Amino acid sequence: MATLTQDHLNNIQAYWEASNYLAAAQIYLQDNPLLKDPLLPAHIKPRLLGHWGTSPGLNFIYVHLNRLIKASDADFLFICGPGHGAPAVLANTFLEGTYTETYPDITQDENGMRYFFRQFSTPGGIPSHVSAHTPGSIHEGGELGYSLAHAAGAVMDNPALIAACVIGDGEAETGPLAGSWKSNCFLNPARDGAVLPILHLNGYKISGPTVMGRLPDETLTALFSGYGYNTLIVRADDPIDIHQEMAMALDTAYEQIREIQQFAREGKKSNSPSLWPLIILRSPKGWTGPVMWKGKHIEGTFRSHQVPLTDVVKDQDQLALLEQWLRSYKPEQHFTPDGKLQPALAALAPSGNKRMSAVPYANGGTDVHPLRMPDYTNYAVSVKAPGESIAEGTRELGKMLRDIFELNEDHQNFRIFCPDETSSNRLDAVFEVTERCFMEHLLDNDEHLSPDGRVMEVLSEHLCQGWLEGYLLTGRHGIFPCYEAFITIIDSMFNQHAKWLKTCREIPWRKDIPSLNYLLTSHSWRQDHNGYSHQGPGFIDTVANKKSNVVRIYLPPDANCLLAVMDHCLKSYNYVNLVVAGKQPSLQWLNMEEATKHCAQGASVWEWAGNANQGKPDVVLACAGDVPTLEIIAAAWLLRKHLPDLKIRVVNVVDLMALSPKEYHPHGMEASLFSDIFTDDTPVIFAFHGYVRIIHDLVHGRPHPARFHLRGFMEEGTTTTPFDMVVLNRMSRFHLAIAAIERAERKPANEAEAISYFEDKLSMHNIYIRECLEDMPDIRDWKWSDI
Amino acid sequence: MATLTQDHLNNIQAYWEASNYLAAAQIYLQDNPLLKDPLLPAHIKPRLLGHWGTSPGLNFIYVHLNRLIKASDADFLFICGPGHGAPAVLANTFLEGTYTETYPDITQDENGMRYFFRQFSTPGGIPSHVSAHTPGSIHEGGELGYSLAHAAGAVMDNPALIAACVIGDGEAETGPLAGSWKSNCFLNPARDGAVLPILHLNGYKISGPTVMGRLPDETLTALFSGYGYNTLIVRADDPIDIHQEMAMALDTAYEQIREIQQFAREGKKSNSPSLWPLIILRSPKGWTGPVMWKGKHIEGTFRSHQVPLTDVVKDQDQLALLEQWLRSYKPEQHFTPDGKLQPALAALAPSGNKRMSAVPYANGGTDVHPLRMPDYTNYAVSVKAPGESIAEGTRELGKMLRDIFELNEDHQNFRIFCPDETSSNRLDAVFEVTERCFMEHLLDNDEHLSPDGRVMEVLSEHLCQGWLEGYLLTGRHGIFPCYEAFITIIDSMFNQHAKWLKTCREIPWRKDIPSLNYLLTSHSWRQDHNGYSHQGPGFIDTVANKKSNVVRIYLPPDANCLLAVMDHCLKSYNYVNLVVAGKQPSLQWLNMEEATKHCAQGASVWEWAGNANQGKPDVVLACAGDVPTLEIIAAAWLLRKHLPDLKIRVVNVVDLMALSPKEYHPHGMEASLFSDIFTDDTPVIFAFHGYVRIIHDLVHGRPHPARFHLRGFMEEGTTTTPFDMVVLNRMSRFHLAIAAIERAERKPANEAEAISYFEDKLSMHNIYIRECLEDMPDIRDWKWSDI
Repeated sequence: MATLTQDHLNNIQAYWEASNYLAAAQIYLQDNPLLKDPLLPAHIKPRLLGHWGTSPGLNFIYVHLNRLIKASDADFLFICGPGHGAPAVLANTFLEGTYTETYPDITQDENGMRYFFRQFSTPGGIPSHVSAHTPGSIHEGGELGYSLAHAAGAVMDNPALIAACVIGDGEAETGPLAGSWKSNCFLNPARDGAVLPILHLNGYKISGPTVMGRLPDETLTALFSGYGYNTLIVRADDPIDIHQEMAMALDTAYEQIREIQQFAREGKKSNSPSLWPLIILRSPKGWTGPVMWKGKHIEGTFRSHQVPLTDVVKDQDQLALLEQWLRSYKPEQHFTPDGKLQPALAALAPSGNKRMSAVPYANGGTDVHPLRMPDYTNYAVSVKAPGESIAEGTRELGKMLRDIFELNEDHQNFRIFCPDETSSNRLDAVFEVTERCFMEHLLDNDEHLSPDGRVMEVLSEHLCQGWLEGYLLTGRHGIFPCYEAFITIIDSMFNQHAKWLKTCREIPWRKDIPSLNYLLTSHSWRQDHNGYSHQGPGFIDTVANKKSNVVRIYLPPDANCLLAVMDHCLKSYNYVNLVVAGKQPSLQWLNMEEATKHCAQGASVWEWAGNANQGKPDVVLACAGDVPTLEIIAAAWLLRKHLPDLKIRVVNVVDLMALSPKEYHPHGMEASLFSDIFTDDTPVIFAFHGYVRIIHDLVHGRPHPARFHLRGFMEEGTTTTPFDMVVLNRMSRFHLAIAAIERAERKPANEAEAISYFEDKLSMHNIYIRECLEDMPDIRDWKWSDI
Repeated sequence: MATLTQDHLNNIQAYWEASNYLAAAQIYLQDNPLLKDPLLPAHIKPRLLGHWGTSPGLNFIYVHLNRLIKASDADFLFICGPGHGAPAVLANTFLEGTYTETYPDITQDENGMRYFFRQFSTPGGIPSHVSAHTPGSIHEGGELGYSLAHAAGAVMDNPALIAACVIGDGEAETGPLAGSWKSNCFLNPARDGAVLPILHLNGYKISGPTVMGRLPDETLTALFSGYGYNTLIVRADDPIDIHQEMAMALDTAYEQIREIQQFAREGKKSNSPSLWPLIILRSPKGWTGPVMWKGKHIEGTFRSHQVPLTDVVKDQDQLALLEQWLRSYKPEQHFTPDGKLQPALAALAPSGNKRMSAVPYANGGTDVHPLRMPDYTNYAVSVKAPGESIAEGTRELGKMLRDIFELNEDHQNFRIFCPDETSSNRLDAVFEVTERCFMEHLLDNDEHLSPDGRVMEVLSEHLCQGWLEGYLLTGRHGIFPCYEAFITIIDSMFNQHAKWLKTCREIPWRKDIPSLNYLLTSHSWRQDHNGYSHQGPGFIDTVANKKSNVVRIYLPPDANCLLAVMDHCLKSYNYVNLVVAGKQPSLQWLNMEEATKHCAQGASVWEWAGNANQGKPDVVLACAGDVPTLEIIAAAWLLRKHLPDLKIRVVNVVDLMALSPKEYHPHGMEASLFSDIFTDDTPVIFAFHGYVRIIHDLVHGRPHPARFHLRGFMEEGTTTTPFDMVVLNRMSRFHLAIAAIERAERKPANEAEAISYFEDKLSMHNIYIRECLEDMPDIRDWKWSDI
């Protein structure tokens, strides 16, 4: 247990002062960086931006973690929940030298320091939050709630790693963070690293108090014991030395972590689950900053959230107070006259890759390996002719995922993250080789459950997403299968991850990150036993809106296409791949060779389904998504049967962005290929899996976009038959056939007759649905399903 | 304290059996509803759908709540987190007679019972979840996580109401639910009703165990004491009478609630916050259902989640087991031969509006009042000429909101829900008349904080949304101001609310519900001191995808338009109104009379900004959103100055859906008006606040959609100047002017010269940004902001 010498304590205090100085100076100073001259208005930045409130607490935690790293030689990753406390994190990367190594223009001297201050939150400089630009970070924190989930994901399969995760009491109010405390039930101390949560209570958000900040110690201790933590509380207002107290708390926490790990790694079994340590640091908001101004408290209140003194240029007294505040950190003592940190202080930080600002975990990972992939064609479904065999796409994919687990067993770098739906989504084959991970006690009736499982099932889309992000950002691979409608729960998390990826692409030193792969199944069109709440394809639109160099959207129409697409996605880096495919038994269209070619091109004419593949068609029938494909092919069949002189061409789109003009998305088809497929002016009837909006957008910029007539999900749904679903949304084969006839360039002779026949069919369907309660048919046995 | 007589206990047991019978029979039977005949395969539904696992526990809770209601005459609202347990909820509405009163075809006799069973989860029947079709419900539960927040919102300002909120252990794993426990810190026992959470632990989700289900009692008790609850545990496996135990727990909980309320309502102050009661019911999943099948446990395991016996038609032994199970509920005893519940049992349920299936709270509310609105024109900003004065739109709106609080003070039916941003969003005027609501202890330095406040600030968008939904669905009014980028946190909650509203419109007995009003400010274009993580306008797309009869999107370009739009929204019912408007000081365009007219029409030509208002223009410059409006007007000014012979027309769109063809949205402009404004074929340069995708969609179906050339947010952002933001996204006045020249129908003479001048300006800007670190300008002082 640490009993630090007075010298060591003094040095820690000095290092903390140095970092607090750099944090405050980033907010305030454009010149006079070491305060060698008296502070003048001209030294102050013209616009004061940045968040002071959380920064001194972050600096305090950081210097103490440094001490522990030096003492233990352990691997620590720093996750900064209050990412707007960038002045603190940046200050430490600067003190450790990593900032200069990463950005050589920011030298470790007076001039470098001036630029370091100037660039903060300035146009042409760096963002005001801990962004991808910050060395050592995998977590921006601008949107709060995900720090603890990121930390847990990062330590999975990284047994040597401890993620120190600072959580502000603002962030602690969010739902996703509240749901993240129980991540400890899914971390296996034998194979995974550890998360050390440090809950930093400074009492306020932007302008109001925080709930946790007002709770007494015993209430918090009870709460966290319920979550499986042993709480160590450090209070800034205690009379005893705060540094000594923090050092002891960290040493205790570290020892408890190592004890739990050693116990587990020696294969011992505990009777009761171990309590992981958690540190609560209670400190004033804006700690060590200005105490009062004009009779109002600043330190310890919401008034220090951003810039505590805002009128320093105009108000001489305030400028004096600022100078007094900045000088209280003794820059002239802690830095040499040429702006270097005093060697005695610099020696406090770890060196090389042990520096939290330089850990390889935070930039592509350590000991990383591309995923070993089996040959996806091994899992091919036999398709002798289109529409003659039935398969369940996800069940076939499950076999490939099973083999991926086996092939990469020695690297321990692949996991499935899923909200309790792996079996429901028919990926069960994976349970032949792995299990669901769970650390609570097991019961006789449990199936496929073990602390060693690599399938992470928790009924929280937020946790699945947060863990997976943490896992990927540290260089490993994964997939997130989810019910389609409920993936929108993590819309905003996806947004932030896509922004992170986009930013990383612009930062030369950022290494490649394995892609985030979504498999959305149990989709909107096949909710036979759920209903309207489970019917929502909107995630496609959310993904499509992000930067085109990071997003990919695939709608494989059958099992072989699903395999080809997933093979491609799982091998890729730096993307978000969205794959939407049903799990239900359905007709198969392409053999593996055709599927491979089709997926590579993104969209193609399915010649066997139409009758005008070469010459100019009267109408093009296009589709994207498995259910729309079935309906379009059925519509084509109906048209060929009832109106054989109508020239139709059938097109399937598997890579949605192929529709986009190339200048808007790298997967966009060349103009000539687009014209070959869709012609330049033939009317197109397009059946789409999602909301039609996005297709209207994608074809904007293509020849004659107005000729595209769309059908898709129009927010009509309930618990009903699959065929009734397409009728309700006016996307049934009959609707499509009628639309094709009405819009075809050349009117076929018996047009009216055919339309009337199709309308009759729809009337019969509606009667059938009304009569369902009388007849009680098997709704799997949907009357109109046969082509 | 309840010590129930044996008779009473027997009756409760019988009522529970009757409801369990109806729940199981809804899943299985299409005929022989009272089992008068031996059970045959022909009596079984052809497809077995529904969720049994949670149903008997829900029935158990329901009958006990009924006992308490009868004993106390209290107002209880039943919130069913496990909404897929609809068989149980529906069973109770049927037993109480409410179902028959609501749907007279489902009579209270044998034939009605048969239809009641048949309709469940059948095409043409009712959904498989507790949907808007279910009397007494304000909560569907298909997407888990929001039950407790809905319950809290429902009891706000309903002092007589107790919301009994059943939370499954699956739902308890979600982030939003975990974040909802602390709703009790925001409920004031003096003025609000109470939430009684009933955590129903049955141990399993779809196929895996639940975290909470595996935690020991003492761990859960500690956890919930940390959240401010006094936990009462009822265990189904206890040897003592489970009914007696549950009755005592409910009586205890009820007494504790009334004690807390009485204390508060008598104006007494407590030294420590009261612990609200919470009941944990531990019962087996699929309780009272089949115990085993072929050596595997069903009751008490995940195997009873949905349909516990699936082969009853084909397997004679299984059919026998089903019959034995169903008969164990003694339908022949509990129902009369003609299918009525035995009078002695029927007498157990409350009557009239006390029935939880009939409480008026769940259908439009009790004692409801339209919001009294001040005359919005009172808050008009003086605009003598366009672009000459500056105002902050949200600051003006704050004054109107302040007066709404005052005007509706006696009805206590209006609140603001906001994630700690009321001041940041410049709505502070409301703090002249009310405060932030907070129930923890207050400190000297707190500002605008009180248990009586009507501004609900919590750093959780999920809680803000959930509380507001609960508040609205019980007939009150509210508004949710939020940072634009972070509203996507509740995308999926909005989806479900929009679906609920859409469904309610199709149900004649559902009463009107006040609209859900979003005010998105601190928007993507003005994040001077945050950055890329705070830049995301995607919520517009999420809203636009929902059913057009419930969604409205407004982008008021200035303060007067914001006031006119918000007046309209706050008075409306049954919609989701999305309003996007900045908070920063900005130029004002319209006086109140003009603003009112403009907002009513949705889009109009701003004649003063163009030079071709009557004749045919060479190019139309259109805009939607405050920043795009500024840039378009500046572009028009530049064009008129540099190319005076170019005929331009400026159009502003305030009601986004006005662009849509009328068949797709009721706000869609008539074709003739659209043509009057945009012409039929003139090129349009359109600057849009959000992603351009949606405009491409909205104009699809209008004459010559390909002529619309869009500029908008293209995922470029960082901490920079407002003007740099529009440059980065190619939407600056110079970009727009160049695009207008390049696309104008008639080429002006000095075209090349003008383009080159504008390109020079952009180069100068880029140099300026690069030099910012040298010059350190005030970034509010953006060099190109003046028109």
